[in-house]
Amino acid sequence: MFETFNFDKLKEECGVVGVYRNKNIEVAKMVYYGLHSLQHRGQESAGIATTDGLHTHFHKDMGLVQDIFKDGIFEEKLKGHIGIGHVRYSTTGESYVANAQPLVVKYRRGSIGLAHNGNLVNAALLRERLEDDGIVFQTTIDSEVIVNLIARFSNEGMVYAIERTMELIRGAYALVVLTEDQLIGVRDPHGLRPLCLGKMEDGYVLASESCALDVLGAEFVRDIEPGEIVTINEEGYQIKKIEKQVKKASCIFEYIYFARPDSIIDGVGVYQARMNAGRILAKEHPADVDMVIAVPDTSIPAAIGYAEASGIPFGEGFIKNRYIGRTFIQPDQSLREAAVRLKLNPLKQNIEGKRIVMIDDSIVRGTTSKKIVNSLKKAGAKEVHVRISSPPVSHSCYYGIDTPDRNQLIGAVKTVEQIRKLIEADSLGYISLEGLIASVGLDNDSFCHACFSGSYPIDVSSMQGNVITSSKVFERL
Amino acid sequence: MFETFNFDKLKEECGVVGVYRNKNIEVAKMVYYGLHSLQHRGQESAGIATTDGLHTHFHKDMGLVQDIFKDGIFEEKLKGHIGIGHVRYSTTGESYVANAQPLVVKYRRGSIGLAHNGNLVNAALLRERLEDDGIVFQTTIDSEVIVNLIARFSNEGMVYAIERTMELIRGAYALVVLTEDQLIGVRDPHGLRPLCLGKMEDGYVLASESCALDVLGAEFVRDIEPGEIVTINEEGYQIKKIEKQVKKASCIFEYIYFARPDSIIDGVGVYQARMNAGRILAKEHPADVDMVIAVPDTSIPAAIGYAEASGIPFGEGFIKNRYIGRTFIQPDQSLREAAVRLKLNPLKQNIEGKRIVMIDDSIVRGTTSKKIVNSLKKAGAKEVHVRISSPPVSHSCYYGIDTPDRNQLIGAVKTVEQIRKLIEADSLGYISLEGLIASVGLDNDSFCHACFSGSYPIDVSSMQGNVITSSKVFERL
Amino acid sequence: MFETFNFDKLKEECGVVGVYRNKNIEVAKMVYYGLHSLQHRGQESAGIATTDGLHTHFHKDMGLVQDIFKDGIFEEKLKGHIGIGHVRYSTTGESYVANAQPLVVKYRRGSIGLAHNGNLVNAALLRERLEDDGIVFQTTIDSEVIVNLIARFSNEGMVYAIERTMELIRGAYALVVLTEDQLIGVRDPHGLRPLCLGKMEDGYVLASESCALDVLGAEFVRDIEPGEIVTINEEGYQIKKIEKQVKKASCIFEYIYFARPDSIIDGVGVYQARMNAGRILAKEHPADVDMVIAVPDTSIPAAIGYAEASGIPFGEGFIKNRYIGRTFIQPDQSLREAAVRLKLNPLKQNIEGKRIVMIDDSIVRGTTSKKIVNSLKKAGAKEVHVRISSPPVSHSCYYGIDTPDRNQLIGAVKTVEQIRKLIEADSLGYISLEGLIASVGLDNDSFCHACFSGSYPIDVSSMQGNVITSSKVFERL
Amino acid sequence: MFETFNFDKLKEECGVVGVYRNKNIEVAKMVYYGLHSLQHRGQESAGIATTDGLHTHFHKDMGLVQDIFKDGIFEEKLKGHIGIGHVRYSTTGESYVANAQPLVVKYRRGSIGLAHNGNLVNAALLRERLEDDGIVFQTTIDSEVIVNLIARFSNEGMVYAIERTMELIRGAYALVVLTEDQLIGVRDPHGLRPLCLGKMEDGYVLASESCALDVLGAEFVRDIEPGEIVTINEEGYQIKKIEKQVKKASCIFEYIYFARPDSIIDGVGVYQARMNAGRILAKEHPADVDMVIAVPDTSIPAAIGYAEASGIPFGEGFIKNRYIGRTFIQPDQSLREAAVRLKLNPLKQNIEGKRIVMIDDSIVRGTTSKKIVNSLKKAGAKEVHVRISSPPVSHSCYYGIDTPDRNQLIGAVKTVEQIRKLIEADSLGYISLEGLIASVGLDNDSFCHACFSGSYPIDVSSMQGNVITSSKVFERL
Repeated sequence: MFETFNFDKLKEECGVVGVYRNKNIEVAKMVYYGLHSLQHRGQESAGIATTDGLHTHFHKDMGLVQDIFKDGIFEEKLKGHIGIGHVRYSTTGESYVANAQPLVVKYRRGSIGLAHNGNLVNAALLRERLEDDGIVFQTTIDSEVIVNLIARFSNEGMVYAIERTMELIRGAYALVVLTEDQLIGVRDPHGLRPLCLGKMEDGYVLASESCALDVLGAEFVRDIEPGEIVTINEEGYQIKKIEKQVKKASCIFEYIYFARPDSIIDGVGVYQARMNAGRILAKEHPADVDMVIAVPDTSIPAAIGYAEASGIPFGEGFIKNRYIGRTFIQPDQSLREAAVRLKLNPLKQNIEGKRIVMIDDSIVRGTTSKKIVNSLKKAGAKEVHVRISSPPVSHSCYYGIDTPDRNQLIGAVKTVEQIRKLIEADSLGYISLEGLIASVGLDNDSFCHACFSGSYPIDVSSMQGNVITSSKVFERL
Repeated sequence: MFETFNFDKLKEECGVVGVYRNKNIEVAKMVYYGLHSLQHRGQESAGIATTDGLHTHFHKDMGLVQDIFKDGIFEEKLKGHIGIGHVRYSTTGESYVANAQPLVVKYRRGSIGLAHNGNLVNAALLRERLEDDGIVFQTTIDSEVIVNLIARFSNEGMVYAIERTMELIRGAYALVVLTEDQLIGVRDPHGLRPLCLGKMEDGYVLASESCALDVLGAEFVRDIEPGEIVTINEEGYQIKKIEKQVKKASCIFEYIYFARPDSIIDGVGVYQARMNAGRILAKEHPADVDMVIAVPDTSIPAAIGYAEASGIPFGEGFIKNRYIGRTFIQPDQSLREAAVRLKLNPLKQNIEGKRIVMIDDSIVRGTTSKKIVNSLKKAGAKEVHVRISSPPVSHSCYYGIDTPDRNQLIGAVKTVEQIRKLIEADSLGYISLEGLIASVGLDNDSFCHACFSGSYPIDVSSMQGNVITSSKVFERL
Repeated sequence: MFETFNFDKLKEECGVVGVYRNKNIEVAKMVYYGLHSLQHRGQESAGIATTDGLHTHFHKDMGLVQDIFKDGIFEEKLKGHIGIGHVRYSTTGESYVANAQPLVVKYRRGSIGLAHNGNLVNAALLRERLEDDGIVFQTTIDSEVIVNLIARFSNEGMVYAIERTMELIRGAYALVVLTEDQLIGVRDPHGLRPLCLGKMEDGYVLASESCALDVLGAEFVRDIEPGEIVTINEEGYQIKKIEKQVKKASCIFEYIYFARPDSIIDGVGVYQARMNAGRILAKEHPADVDMVIAVPDTSIPAAIGYAEASGIPFGEGFIKNRYIGRTFIQPDQSLREAAVRLKLNPLKQNIEGKRIVMIDDSIVRGTTSKKIVNSLKKAGAKEVHVRISSPPVSHSCYYGIDTPDRNQLIGAVKTVEQIRKLIEADSLGYISLEGLIASVGLDNDSFCHACFSGSYPIDVSSMQGNVITSSKVFERL
Repeated sequence: MFETFNFDKLKEECGVVGVYRNKNIEVAKMVYYGLHSLQHRGQESAGIATTDGLHTHFHKDMGLVQDIFKDGIFEEKLKGHIGIGHVRYSTTGESYVANAQPLVVKYRRGSIGLAHNGNLVNAALLRERLEDDGIVFQTTIDSEVIVNLIARFSNEGMVYAIERTMELIRGAYALVVLTEDQLIGVRDPHGLRPLCLGKMEDGYVLASESCALDVLGAEFVRDIEPGEIVTINEEGYQIKKIEKQVKKASCIFEYIYFARPDSIIDGVGVYQARMNAGRILAKEHPADVDMVIAVPDTSIPAAIGYAEASGIPFGEGFIKNRYIGRTFIQPDQSLREAAVRLKLNPLKQNIEGKRIVMIDDSIVRGTTSKKIVNSLKKAGAKEVHVRISSPPVSHSCYYGIDTPDRNQLIGAVKTVEQIRKLIEADSLGYISLEGLIASVGLDNDSFCHACFSGSYPIDVSSMQGNVITSSKVFERL
């Protein structure tokens, strides 16, 4: 067994959802549906925590949402009208069930449930300082640091405690927090990870992406802005913005690959952003071909955009097997190629004899592109021109995305022409960073594009060498 | 728990695969990969049987291919160089593991493994006659009837036994049969269900669809013709055609919905047939709209064809959740609509303010179309015109497809205008039967289109009332 | 993983139970309780079949009764007022779930469920003859031969069919048979395997041992005599004895080891028989010692009998771990001895400084006795005298007991003195065959003691060489 | 489903084991074997933690030892030469896997694994004080309090930290503690729960009972005395006794029921203590009967002792079903009695017509005794005289044993004569407290017999009303 197919993508990280309903209305199945619509953000583990105002319940395990939660669990265990949920693709912390989220703890004022999307850059340091103070840790996840800080500062109320915590933690975080009487959402001051608020007839929803709101029939209220804390309780919702003002830097990769295309993040539709990228790519890197195809599914809108802008017809080039899960029987030597074709079979009928532009959203290590290009040629494509709807990935992410070491990033170590040769494409073109930013249609200043530019909005020097240097940050404790 | 979402489709039935490799080369993983590529043909149960020339092994269970077979099973159990596999969506027979296929039996000359796609129309009668003869049955599947007949006639060899069996059984069948020293493929005289032959460096493959050949890297040799028996052993393959000549009548629904678009069946590419249907539909039922969308995934090629022929741009209208399995937590009342949106969320960004043509491949009961049309209108579509790339389904299938009773088929009980009103579309158009046949590009005479036309190639009167009338068919026994 | 501890015993074979209750009273849980009380007769697989008069249901799997049957199964699946059950320790047939019993088949007159304890000596021959007739087999168990014969002869009713079947099958069998309207019990003409009948307020019970009757609160009616067929239906029960008269030869090992001590078989209490054996052993092989101990649990009554007859006090010598199942983690080299002590730890406090007589019920291969004797000596026993409450096992069983090949039977290849040396006992004495027979208190002629005497009541020559010689037995078919 | 059969016993609590082996020798299977031999002390959950000096690993789950640990786990996960294990019958804390032990945490100096047998009386108070300090808790078990305290005090080394912790915690505890380089054992100052030390060729063992030493082939070194801390590392073992001197008060119920009879606790053999109790009981409450029987298995030695002292023969009165686990299918109304007989069937052959003394170890609620007495009478016993080898249980235990509320203890609310009538015995006699103490053969002062006498060695007033009153105990923190 092994994790099936590394299709050479950055891995999604995590998704969070929180639902507050009026008292005496069960919330767990809503959390479940919301979580299911965020499954693309993490397939390793999932969990739900709920509270009925007195008791806090949780259930979490390794696996997919629909395999972890069975009918009886909702009725027997996950009772209550407030709930949070989490799907995880492990980025930090080892991979076992104790590390699954939400993390639920008891503290002096009751229970806290916490679900976290993102990655702190000073977690190790904070952890060390807490340990110096005698604190023990039962997991290896950042969230345990956060929940300890919140508990410490909790004497003057949750919002105060979260504000104090936000002063200490550095990095990317979108949090949903559950207490016996409220649901709280938090987005880090840079807004690295997304979070939005929706309203239903009988309550509110917080979610990483607006597609969860759609599924639950909730009306979109607004994005949680960077540095905001939203508190939802019987009186409705209240938003507080922490003072510390920093440059907004939301993750541009959400638009390229992570988010579901039907989500709207920070006011920009993901589908439209991808189509725009395709249109811009067509101008930056035109090609004289017969058909535009996409590597399904993410690249389809960019391919449609490319087709529209270039006037070249869009067609399907691959059939994707819809039944392939995370794990898979290891192929024998003679089946190595079969394993690739099993996932993505070229549509010979459409390709044979044609010159093709193939749109892909990104190249990370470059291990798969060659196989795909070759499979098109074997299927009869006369030419295969590769167009990438993001710039070369050349720097690691420290904010919650699982990137390989820099020396494994092909965009960091090879030129475009070298990459073209390697993947045996007839031509290769990446969208420019400016083009990408224009495709999202917002101001340059508002994104984190460190993976392309190396321009990190939060200092990550302590992460890069894994050397944690002295710091004053904890002195307040 | 319930089977998630009836998206109002005819259900796939079964898929079969058989692989013969040179001696001392393990075959089981190849069967597994082939089976995986046919998973769309049946998700209820799956099984593999193999032989090493001396012993015949099998493993089968309820569930998906990748959940049933784990690494150890191949090494410890499924040994040998000849193997067959089966995926099943139950059409006849109750739903439990004893009914899973392949069926493996011992008989006077060794072992037989049999995997069957299709449905006999005289199975009950044959079963009764065999029971009269003292035979006992341990399952409720047709295949047990077939294997009993083969065993009875086996004294003069397998091919003779299969020929004799084919004289008795009536209905749809594509079979792969395993013995200690050969792999045999059989297609019924009408060719109702597909079967094709591929060649690898070290052996041969039989499969319901050519996409399995692609995955295994096998070269397509030819379709097994109706009424042919292909025998594969150390000497290569031999084909025998039984004399009984009847009209070819291969299932046209394979092209509309069942088969994978990258498969080529009886010489016709499924993807191209679907695109053609879209093109013809555009001529038969034009629409003055801004965008052509598909109900994913099956209808995408027809939508692209419609777009091409009409000059109206193709766009994506829905985002499909890729993680939804067969079973699902039952929604509360307040989540009924969520359950639909969870599977298929309209892509508001693309739809808002537009007049839309939505292409779907078929309407069976009509229960889902209204929900989908409405979800588009809620998402802001100004008009929704529905075009169906098959004629109204108005008759039940008795040849292996799970169709509801005729009185539940909306195409049998309502006019097109009544259906339009019911699904609240602005207009509704079905492709004509002639248009559909033309889209496949073969001669009218070569298809079974009984579900549209009521013109059954094999008499099904005994099935319709479940009354098994007297018959001479068994006298030979 | 491996089957934990071969404690050098003949393996139990199978247990059967059948319950008939008045209409509209659910029977499945009764079968379950009955089956649970027979769990000592087989721990490999278990199954239950029930009928509600119209439909026949079954559930079977590998494992223990309480692990296989969960609450929902009774309500949802195993409906009806007649039921049979089976526990199995595999003796013939490979070990997989298809071979679990009861075997349920459909035949010309409805359904038959069959559970079989015992082993036929001419099954291979009969199977061959049935195969010659075109019959296919889906399992490797004798029961499939029996059910095929019954089905063949079924035109004149079940009792007739069973009689005809009994004319053909040779060997050991206690059967319970289920049809839509009756429960039938059958015991072979020699009575090799036990079967008894009990009466409850609202029905009847058939079971391998009377302890199942006790558990169900049923009153013991009588043993089914050798060659009898008992039919239970709404009119009560009827017994028919087949004419073929042969010498009774019930298995004497049931009294020594297989049966539960609280069972009464053929009129003799198993506990009393074991105590008697101990008493006789005390006379045949006295010992000048301080304490009599047993290898728990089977040998306790014999040890108490020995103590009583000799005047030497009985004491406990070992503590048995009650939580050890069939499978167990393989010990490292350094833990080999731990694995034995884990199961059976000498009770040092009781043993130290004492001369001991240790009673065991049998020695088969002799692999464990040495370890046990040594563990007593290590625990401080001054002398260890071993007394065995059965004669040396010197011949294989062909009637349903799993015995090793003769050359592995220590009683067949070594003298008593050689065995004594091997197991390092201070003295060793086996009860005489006459003594054993006297302990059961019935006439010599009524037992099968072939495993001690080699005197087989049914010819087994065809089994010994695995050569199936010609036979006229099947001519009637 | 429900926990099968309340056989009216106090429930075992927990068992702990720790093994230290020389470097580079794997320890996990040893822990597993040791744990298996302590399975009688808790069947709800089990866990093992190991360290290889760098990394600490653990695996724990609900269920029996042999079901939780599978072969691969040892090789792949539980690496290292030091290990601890725990079996649990839940006494405090809810019943879910997060509450299973060992508890493994990271703290400032590395990792701690902790397994705890016993119950603190001031855990809630300490927890509250820790929470006041900002600590969060992820479980509901006492052990999390202990491990937090140890971590707090850890700056001056583990032994110092444990000493400081022992100053704060009050109640019963036998601990095994794992760090990267040592194994530590701790017994509370009263010695309420047992712990002993053994020596192997290549290391040391700590265990709740000496039977685990026997199984592992370890030589008994000595009991850990009340208030002692034993530290095992590469230099051997060192013992430190904390100064705080209090009266020894080891749990007398270990001898009556909890411990395995082959264990030696604080110098006294459990088996001999039970036999002694039987002898004394025979003198305190003689009976004119024909046979002495035991309720198996615990009461057998007492019955043998009674038989020996009275001259009345010992015999077996019941057959116990060895295959009954914790859970069981709920019986129908008509099977309520079957459920009892399934577990314990009277041995009619031995009982019929006899006057019986039945020895039982204790009566808690009195719910089962009547059923058992009646089952003997139904089986033909002429008289049934009940003798109990412990005094009436009349007070709850707060030191780790699961006792019902006082008002449910039949010994607290009824006289002996009332109990006799209730259980329908012909006579009833309990051993006196003096007799019980004499049976163990140690000084009165050295036991806790609060459950009989109400004389609690540690103040439990704060537990009884669940009101936690103010306390100075935490001031040092």
